[in-house]
Amino acid sequence: MGNTRGKATALLLVAQAIILVLFGLFVDYDVAAGPRNNSLTTHTTLAHYYPIYQDVHVMMLIGFGFLMTFLKRHGFGSVGFNFLLTCYVIEWSTLVNGWFGMIGSNEGRILIDIKSLLEADFAVATVLISFGAVLGVASPVQLIMMATIEVVCYNVSIYVGIPLKHIIILKQVTDVGGSMFIHAFGAYFGLAVARVLYKKSQTLSKKEGSEYHSDIFAMIGTLFLWLYWPSFNAGPASGTERHRAVINTVLSLSACTVVTFALSAVTDKKNKLDMVHIQNATLAGGVAMGASADLIVQPFGALLIGSVAALVSTLGFKYLQPILQRNIKLHDTCGVHNLHGMPGILGVVASAIAAAIATQETYKDSYHELFKNTTRTSGQNGGYQIASLAVVLGIAIIGGTLTGFLLKLPVWDNLSAEELFEDEVFWDCVETVSEDEAEQNGSNDKQHEVVA
Amino acid sequence: MGNTRGKATALLLVAQAIILVLFGLFVDYDVAAGPRNNSLTTHTTLAHYYPIYQDVHVMMLIGFGFLMTFLKRHGFGSVGFNFLLTCYVIEWSTLVNGWFGMIGSNEGRILIDIKSLLEADFAVATVLISFGAVLGVASPVQLIMMATIEVVCYNVSIYVGIPLKHIIILKQVTDVGGSMFIHAFGAYFGLAVARVLYKKSQTLSKKEGSEYHSDIFAMIGTLFLWLYWPSFNAGPASGTERHRAVINTVLSLSACTVVTFALSAVTDKKNKLDMVHIQNATLAGGVAMGASADLIVQPFGALLIGSVAALVSTLGFKYLQPILQRNIKLHDTCGVHNLHGMPGILGVVASAIAAAIATQETYKDSYHELFKNTTRTSGQNGGYQIASLAVVLGIAIIGGTLTGFLLKLPVWDNLSAEELFEDEVFWDCVETVSEDEAEQNGSNDKQHEVVA
Amino acid sequence: MGNTRGKATALLLVAQAIILVLFGLFVDYDVAAGPRNNSLTTHTTLAHYYPIYQDVHVMMLIGFGFLMTFLKRHGFGSVGFNFLLTCYVIEWSTLVNGWFGMIGSNEGRILIDIKSLLEADFAVATVLISFGAVLGVASPVQLIMMATIEVVCYNVSIYVGIPLKHIIILKQVTDVGGSMFIHAFGAYFGLAVARVLYKKSQTLSKKEGSEYHSDIFAMIGTLFLWLYWPSFNAGPASGTERHRAVINTVLSLSACTVVTFALSAVTDKKNKLDMVHIQNATLAGGVAMGASADLIVQPFGALLIGSVAALVSTLGFKYLQPILQRNIKLHDTCGVHNLHGMPGILGVVASAIAAAIATQETYKDSYHELFKNTTRTSGQNGGYQIASLAVVLGIAIIGGTLTGFLLKLPVWDNLSAEELFEDEVFWDCVETVSEDEAEQNGSNDKQHEVVA
Repeated sequence: MGNTRGKATALLLVAQAIILVLFGLFVDYDVAAGPRNNSLTTHTTLAHYYPIYQDVHVMMLIGFGFLMTFLKRHGFGSVGFNFLLTCYVIEWSTLVNGWFGMIGSNEGRILIDIKSLLEADFAVATVLISFGAVLGVASPVQLIMMATIEVVCYNVSIYVGIPLKHIIILKQVTDVGGSMFIHAFGAYFGLAVARVLYKKSQTLSKKEGSEYHSDIFAMIGTLFLWLYWPSFNAGPASGTERHRAVINTVLSLSACTVVTFALSAVTDKKNKLDMVHIQNATLAGGVAMGASADLIVQPFGALLIGSVAALVSTLGFKYLQPILQRNIKLHDTCGVHNLHGMPGILGVVASAIAAAIATQETYKDSYHELFKNTTRTSGQNGGYQIASLAVVLGIAIIGGTLTGFLLKLPVWDNLSAEELFEDEVFWDCVETVSEDEAEQNGSNDKQHEVVA
Repeated sequence: MGNTRGKATALLLVAQAIILVLFGLFVDYDVAAGPRNNSLTTHTTLAHYYPIYQDVHVMMLIGFGFLMTFLKRHGFGSVGFNFLLTCYVIEWSTLVNGWFGMIGSNEGRILIDIKSLLEADFAVATVLISFGAVLGVASPVQLIMMATIEVVCYNVSIYVGIPLKHIIILKQVTDVGGSMFIHAFGAYFGLAVARVLYKKSQTLSKKEGSEYHSDIFAMIGTLFLWLYWPSFNAGPASGTERHRAVINTVLSLSACTVVTFALSAVTDKKNKLDMVHIQNATLAGGVAMGASADLIVQPFGALLIGSVAALVSTLGFKYLQPILQRNIKLHDTCGVHNLHGMPGILGVVASAIAAAIATQETYKDSYHELFKNTTRTSGQNGGYQIASLAVVLGIAIIGGTLTGFLLKLPVWDNLSAEELFEDEVFWDCVETVSEDEAEQNGSNDKQHEVVA
Repeated sequence: MGNTRGKATALLLVAQAIILVLFGLFVDYDVAAGPRNNSLTTHTTLAHYYPIYQDVHVMMLIGFGFLMTFLKRHGFGSVGFNFLLTCYVIEWSTLVNGWFGMIGSNEGRILIDIKSLLEADFAVATVLISFGAVLGVASPVQLIMMATIEVVCYNVSIYVGIPLKHIIILKQVTDVGGSMFIHAFGAYFGLAVARVLYKKSQTLSKKEGSEYHSDIFAMIGTLFLWLYWPSFNAGPASGTERHRAVINTVLSLSACTVVTFALSAVTDKKNKLDMVHIQNATLAGGVAMGASADLIVQPFGALLIGSVAALVSTLGFKYLQPILQRNIKLHDTCGVHNLHGMPGILGVVASAIAAAIATQETYKDSYHELFKNTTRTSGQNGGYQIASLAVVLGIAIIGGTLTGFLLKLPVWDNLSAEELFEDEVFWDCVETVSEDEAEQNGSNDKQHEVVA
């Protein structure tokens, strides 16, 4: 695709052909989507998940896609490659999630229903977070390769230990909204890739920046992410836990937004607001609420989590990101470390505290629904949250680093300095301005229209 | 925030801290969102409200937010401060709505569920309507102050008379979609504030206007408001009334849009369409349908209400607004008088007629569901609709006027003439255009990119 | 409207008045939306359809509306006339659908509920597809006339044969997502109109083209269409069939998008991606999946249908469309032949195959739910799918051609060469740039802001 001399095309067509065959070999409709059997009542599954699935789906394509259009010369690539990666990962993760789900069972087929599609979107989210770290600096071929490997690593991080029953820790931690498995994992995987791909030229490009309308396009992404985040965090839950996850997430996001506005202004020397913070740090409350969204943190606890997330994220954008870029050569285009990385860790810490103080009395009938391992104490549950985070981060960083080195091989269309953050490399975006128009407007405008 | 010398930041941080403490003291999960009790079936609440809540939520942030981006140099402020106000009011109104809800009960805690969040969004809508009246002429500090007071006044207008049982009129009027309590209240409150804040310079600013792409951004807001308005009007209802509210609202909005297109063209001297009308007056059918959305007005009645709303709103934008600006010094940036004020009143009148002709026979089992006071005749019900409107308007105008004078105190960062309708005042939106780019495009473009 | 010397206004006002009267004479609430009868449980209808209805509704106004904003000087007209046509057709098709639904019954009233609104949106979709074929080359008066006639033809194509019981073929074919009745019909009807309206000047206009930001606006439309397409295809279904329709559509769209990216690059001489393909051909998987969305095509079958749809659509945009324009004088502004026409036919072929191989054993209790005619063999069911397509195409092409000749009458405001693809004709979009601004930016910018 683009000037990739056909590599992306070939890769996609081969991948699509393989996926088609694998679907034929492995994938079937689940009974809830299969031939109707009027004696069974399976139709509630769709009603339970579908509206929430659609919200999450909007987050993937509109949310992530438009959030990344802030770059003034990379709008097509942001929304376009986001679209491509989403679709590719929906297919690929349906297979990989399915295979990992089979481990330890005798089922030989992957049976899919609406819940499988929701789970595919969670894998998509993970990949799109990593995409943000390398936005504008990786070619489509590199992105497809990254996604292919990341989906496997993502599943490894969720299912690690399952075959080794004695270290079965991850499946039994609580992380309904994916602070750990989606946000922290996706961020550190992507950051590891970005670190390996780092070139000095990335920090010198004059094209990495926004302009007035590209910032407004990006707000479409921000707001749809913000609006549907409660569905993301509550999606896998049901009953009163789902209800609570919605409330906690709305409260956390609201507090996060208020605090972000306050901190964005106060950290600016002219006291002006920075669109980067408003577009991103306002969402940190959703990330940080993820792991404890269905826990009884109390409404004020949700506000507190959101407020601290805003603090961590805004200060991260303002102070930490430039330091990391200078000192450890980490170029993070979308600031995923500040939006997904640190708030994800914060979310796990919050969930560890909530788990450690949880009692059967407080949670009543949902205690063992939420904390599945019946042999642990509450304190141990809290500890396992942290231990699990360490394992997830380890897999993310090792996996991302190895992936980064693979992507750096000269065979995968590495971008040169002039090709960074620039749509013209991969997209046919030259204006066909007619001669008399060009005359009338002055020849500069021709260039201008292409650019702005 | 912005050039507010830290006042907005301080105000927001203090407010957030107070809200945090008050949530700790007062707010709990409702049983439907609390610890699971498998012997209760409370999970239907979420399913009943959540999809509709999400629609309404989109209206607040995308709908109102983007509708206001029509201003060519105030896109950040429109969508950004709309975002801030929404989040702040979600928190604040949860408390204030809760306290007012406790009046007369022995409950000492505010128990929140998804319905509380929906009700918070109704308070948000009220504030955002008022925001439209002062868009670009009030600083963030002023907006936050306004929102804080307005939420209290809004609750007063809903609950007035509750402690005085003998004049308990408002709670027993019918206004499912808020023509009276949300649209008319929000509009006249905001207009009163705008009237007090009026300065000659507001009408002279060359920045108050749209450009091509800002008008297209605004259509995103219009269309999402239009699309999800049926959820707004039907949200609080259930059963066949909810179903009817959806149908009535879709029909009213459709007729309103058709008539708005017709009138926009015919009132223009060159017969051209005006984007202001298409962006705003097309929505008046939703406003006007609010108070009678769940009543049996018949499908043709819904079309009629929408058609009349288009007439009132389009003519208001075209002829009345300039007169009000000239003669009574009312500068109404978004024309909320035409979209929310007059159509709101129209909606109450429509509901009064519908109430006056309602019979037990027509409404069957829902008669006393809709008309709660069992001691009144239908004619009296109609009269109470009008009486209630008078009270609501009185509270709005008095509350708004007092709020306006408070905001005018020199302590709250009043905007100077050059600061009106201008993002650069509060937002860091200077382009970092590199030197060779600037050379290539001519230096004018640097300015241009910032602006357009 | 616009420079139509009041014709559009007069037409709309007269039409609205007539519709109002006809609603009064014919339309009532269905029992599910009527007076409450607590002994009936009719409220599940709304819950079953409403979230899906809202998704489809978003597709109409945001999806189609923004998809068409790709034209650089026709954004207002694209999103605006799309809005007008949607509202007008909601009203008009409620009547026409209702009358056709009465054929053969004794009911004298049209009883509407949420399902009627969903069906109205399907008629809207059909008209909007045709709109795409004449985008920028037909005046509002012509569009309204076209919509008025097309809604009747659309109903004829669905209900043909009903009065003649022995040739009752169409009602008993399967087309849950409208590959045949909506996409193929709407495309070929619109193409026939476009063919008749063809003028050489349409192919010479320098205004027919996109610019950078108009292409990003168009992606909003693409993505919302893509996201809510599963609701479109699954809307009329229920039970496991609805569930299956969702899964099939998501899979088909995902595969279609991946293949479109691959083919868009490989067919370009510089290997660059073409936004036209990404905006349109990615959706062909939704169109092609329509007729067999609720059939048991297996997950791999859905991927296959989507992949082939991408092939047909992308190659259609790239190679076939220029040929048709040159050789048969067909100017198709949005390329509806490639997005709706050919993929619609593909969808019917796929459904014919699926029907021909269907067995009672495979489908269990839903066999006669899906294939209603109990006297036919599976092979015959397949044959009837194709026969029905031929009839639908015949009605579309004949209806569209006659409509085209009607629209060509000099009385309906035909557009001159300079008026094509140009908002200024119908919209008041001259900037009010102040003098000192104009001075500062150079006078060219005044023109520029209007245009870009």
